[in-house]
Amino acid sequence: MVVSAAAEKDQAATGALDRLLAVTHAEMEKVNALILSRAESHVEMVPQLARYLIEAGGKRLRPMLTVAAAMLFGGQTGAQVNYAAAVEFMHNATLLHDDVVDESDMRRGRPAARMIWGNQASVLVGDYLLGQAFLMMVETGRLDALGVLAKAATIIAEGEVFQLSKAGDLAATPDDYDQVIRAKTATLFQAAAEVGAMAGGADAAGRAALRDYGLELGLAFQLVDDVLDYRGEAGAMGKNTGDDLREGKMTLPVILALAAANPAERGIITAALGKPDASEASFAQIVAIMDRHNALGRTVEKAHAHVRRAREALAPLPASDMKTILSDIAEFYVSRAY
Amino acid sequence: MVVSAAAEKDQAATGALDRLLAVTHAEMEKVNALILSRAESHVEMVPQLARYLIEAGGKRLRPMLTVAAAMLFGGQTGAQVNYAAAVEFMHNATLLHDDVVDESDMRRGRPAARMIWGNQASVLVGDYLLGQAFLMMVETGRLDALGVLAKAATIIAEGEVFQLSKAGDLAATPDDYDQVIRAKTATLFQAAAEVGAMAGGADAAGRAALRDYGLELGLAFQLVDDVLDYRGEAGAMGKNTGDDLREGKMTLPVILALAAANPAERGIITAALGKPDASEASFAQIVAIMDRHNALGRTVEKAHAHVRRAREALAPLPASDMKTILSDIAEFYVSRAY
Repeated sequence: MVVSAAAEKDQAATGALDRLLAVTHAEMEKVNALILSRAESHVEMVPQLARYLIEAGGKRLRPMLTVAAAMLFGGQTGAQVNYAAAVEFMHNATLLHDDVVDESDMRRGRPAARMIWGNQASVLVGDYLLGQAFLMMVETGRLDALGVLAKAATIIAEGEVFQLSKAGDLAATPDDYDQVIRAKTATLFQAAAEVGAMAGGADAAGRAALRDYGLELGLAFQLVDDVLDYRGEAGAMGKNTGDDLREGKMTLPVILALAAANPAERGIITAALGKPDASEASFAQIVAIMDRHNALGRTVEKAHAHVRRAREALAPLPASDMKTILSDIAEFYVSRAY
Repeated sequence: MVVSAAAEKDQAATGALDRLLAVTHAEMEKVNALILSRAESHVEMVPQLARYLIEAGGKRLRPMLTVAAAMLFGGQTGAQVNYAAAVEFMHNATLLHDDVVDESDMRRGRPAARMIWGNQASVLVGDYLLGQAFLMMVETGRLDALGVLAKAATIIAEGEVFQLSKAGDLAATPDDYDQVIRAKTATLFQAAAEVGAMAGGADAAGRAALRDYGLELGLAFQLVDDVLDYRGEAGAMGKNTGDDLREGKMTLPVILALAAANPAERGIITAALGKPDASEASFAQIVAIMDRHNALGRTVEKAHAHVRRAREALAPLPASDMKTILSDIAEFYVSRAY
């Protein structure tokens, strides 16, 4: 039996997730318990809405990254549990606000919270989760780690505003896109890895390595996500394909397609971009145009480049099982794009 | 010429604001400079929207409270400038989110930011200001003060959700109302005064005194605000009278009026409560019903009780000009209700 090199790599990558889940399992149990206890409130609507979102699961990739980074450096201060929960709360707060901003109907395979409790409660419970995130950070007694996450919070919000200001802007460039995903996605991956390293007792070089690793991993992750919005299956993604197109989001696939399109193709894309009621037929046409110009393929290529940089960031660190897992996991997240 | 005791008290109260403004002027200049510099961003829409709100002014009562509390204890660490700016950013973030939640058209005498930049940008710039608030706190290097404001952020959001869950609820009680205003308003006054005391180097007793003072001042402030929503002038308030009624907010005047109303009066109130298009005529009728049952008068009475407690909280502290000003300023804010 002949197994291709690509398939072998893919198998190693898939295995990496299982290994990461196994090795972080005990710590993630503590993180999950903390997350649920901090979603409590005497105001009923708060835990109802927060638990609805939290229990839908998601991959918990960001807090897992924090826990794994702490374990990589062997530290057992326990602070990583608080940091990981804080990172997940920041992420969930962003999701609640994003769904309001994007008017999304679906999240994690179910109706978005705003469809059940309304935009108002989604905004306010997001604020609550953000406050709780900072409280959990305060409890660890480390101001430097708190500074990393506070800085991340401002950069994320700034990136979201920048993305909003570019919505439907046909002149948006790959650089604009890069700026958006660095801010709105990669910054939290970066902070999650960095505060994990800090909790693990990393020295300055170790902390910088994890910072770089998290940033590159986050960039790869978002690039793949933006490919899946055109090529994924709604069930697998937990949201609808075509959302980005209908919201007018200038992601790299659409930027590359517009740049390469002939006038007729350009007309087809611009007629659907930012139109909430764009048909499935016109969406399929646009995916075909993207394929014709290899816009999705080139986006995946860019994700691969970031995965390489993520692995390079870890290279100077001493060999360990966790280092191998973190190296492989970056590969895994790009393998989702196939 | 005969001057009534009430008028004399009122004059002393009005003078208190002038004295507070004068004595905090130099510190507030630094606070205002910091506020403007921290509203900056390379993403244009962020400073545009933030400055629009910030430059509309508002009374800056909360940051002034922080600065005054620090001066009361004589400390000159400089930390109060950061805390004061952080408090104002938290307040402005709340305003941006509130206006989205309440669908308000006006704020500080101008169209609400969301009417110009949209709900989406208002949510995201609010998040940005909140992140900046925490960053400014981090810079002071004091984790305990940061904890006070992080805790306040969660309680405020919780209170807003509670208020939302009670909107239009005819069974809402004075206790429900008390719970709402403690959380959504008084908590930030309390935190503003407490972190100011901390920056000023207060001991535990001094810190507790300012905590209690801030809480009671905040309660009085909100009670008066809720009276003005029925009896104020749109120009003076910077927003429209009748907003609370039309949004279905169960403030104390409407709770007291409903409890005392006969069936006909009750019908008039419930017909307008929570109706965005309730007419000016029905609003006037409802104010008349409130006056008949002294609902506004009893609300002002309650504000007076909190002012007394605010003054009592300061009583154990050594006599000083600042103590007198803080004592008098509480009176001043209730005098707005006349």
